[in-house]
Amino acid sequence: MTISIDDFKKIEIKIGEILSAEKVLDADKLLKLSVNFGEEAPRQIISGISMYFENPNDLVGRKCAFATNLEPRVIKGLESQGMILAVSGEDFFSLLSAESNTAPGASVK
Amino acid sequence: MTISIDDFKKIEIKIGEILSAEKVLDADKLLKLSVNFGEEAPRQIISGISMYFENPNDLVGRKCAFATNLEPRVIKGLESQGMILAVSGEDFFSLLSAESNTAPGASVK
Repeated sequence: MTISIDDFKKIEIKIGEILSAEKVLDADKLLKLSVNFGEEAPRQIISGISMYFENPNDLVGRKCAFATNLEPRVIKGLESQGMILAVSGEDFFSLLSAESNTAPGASVK
Repeated sequence: MTISIDDFKKIEIKIGEILSAEKVLDADKLLKLSVNFGEEAPRQIISGISMYFENPNDLVGRKCAFATNLEPRVIKGLESQGMILAVSGEDFFSLLSAESNTAPGASVK
């Protein structure tokens, strides 16, 4: 389905800097991320990507793309204030990474 | 403005592999990209990012995120069949990159 540029602009996609990442107890697939978007406080983001990161600490410091204006969701009792963007297939998984000098909170135009 | 997950899903974001990149004559800001999305033919995408790439060939081989279901637009007489996603600020510019083993056409879920 084709969309208009106005439809596209409704979605806020921002670069967040991952400050911490840890497995969620009793939820094999989930990671709890703390993400800096240049706002007053970091956001908590819950994501089903645990299987792709043997060591969640590998994510710390990465600057990745997130959808940041979705309605907050509660997943396993934890509020998620955004969604990390990723692609995956049979033999690959990838986040969408920005260059290391990107300012946290930078928005896709 | 907050959006629903259904609003988000209207937008198709795919990873494309840049096959070629060249400056558009008489249009300082524009690059003409040929991008592989795993479709029958590559798509032509016109993007105003020329100032960030002294040598457009540096883009060849990169796998980046594109919005792929916008209405096609004609820019300086050239049809653009998608939009490359990027963030920029006073002292940075970044595309959104996928890992090198990502299959062209992989879609953000």
